[in-house]
Amino acid sequence: MVIDDAQVKAEVEAAFRTYEAALTGNDVPVLEALFHDDPRTIRYGAGENLYGMDAIRAFRRARAAAGLERTLSQTVITTYGRDFATAMTLFSRKNAPGRIGRQSQTWVRFPDGWRVVAAHVSLIDG
Amino acid sequence: MVIDDAQVKAEVEAAFRTYEAALTGNDVPVLEALFHDDPRTIRYGAGENLYGMDAIRAFRRARAAAGLERTLSQTVITTYGRDFATAMTLFSRKNAPGRIGRQSQTWVRFPDGWRVVAAHVSLIDG
Repeated sequence: MVIDDAQVKAEVEAAFRTYEAALTGNDVPVLEALFHDDPRTIRYGAGENLYGMDAIRAFRRARAAAGLERTLSQTVITTYGRDFATAMTLFSRKNAPGRIGRQSQTWVRFPDGWRVVAAHVSLIDG
Repeated sequence: MVIDDAQVKAEVEAAFRTYEAALTGNDVPVLEALFHDDPRTIRYGAGENLYGMDAIRAFRRARAAAGLERTLSQTVITTYGRDFATAMTLFSRKNAPGRIGRQSQTWVRFPDGWRVVAAHVSLIDG
């Protein structure tokens, strides 16, 4: 198994960037499209635990659209083979000074492209 | 790609149980052995962000050994193909009433067995 194959990594980095732009822009259709549409997809958010794409969709559509800008740091994307990757990043928001955000995602390549199958977002004191 | 192949899932479930027993028993050698020994392995803990196995090892060895018992709930392990899996679980501790723990892990099969390559632990109010 090749770790961090350059081509595979470039693909996941592109998907990650698309996700980040959609998140800060509150582009809900893109956010939804980048998660695997499956009851087994799970997202632990900053304050909620969402099991299955139906729960994730309901949360996204109800989310406030303000204050989403953030700055990423220590982002590490690692690919394992051709179809699997992790994306780990810290983030900070101007409206949450002194707090460190952590976002972890597991990406899988499906026939229609790379999708997040598991995600976890949390905040701790910096 | 087969999702949740029964044999693969059984393997990951066994690794997950071994990890959980080591965690609550503070069996540091087993905990370390179940993480992929690599600078790219990342663990976001309840209060710390650990990049690389060296940082993870240092944290494990300094950790207090008391109050580690916990009860898991809503544990979902999903396998993708033969070599990749996610393990998501909530947990609660008697010494942290009213708090919900979330633990997510990404597991990869290496020649020497299943290993965690990325983990994220956080606590939120219940």
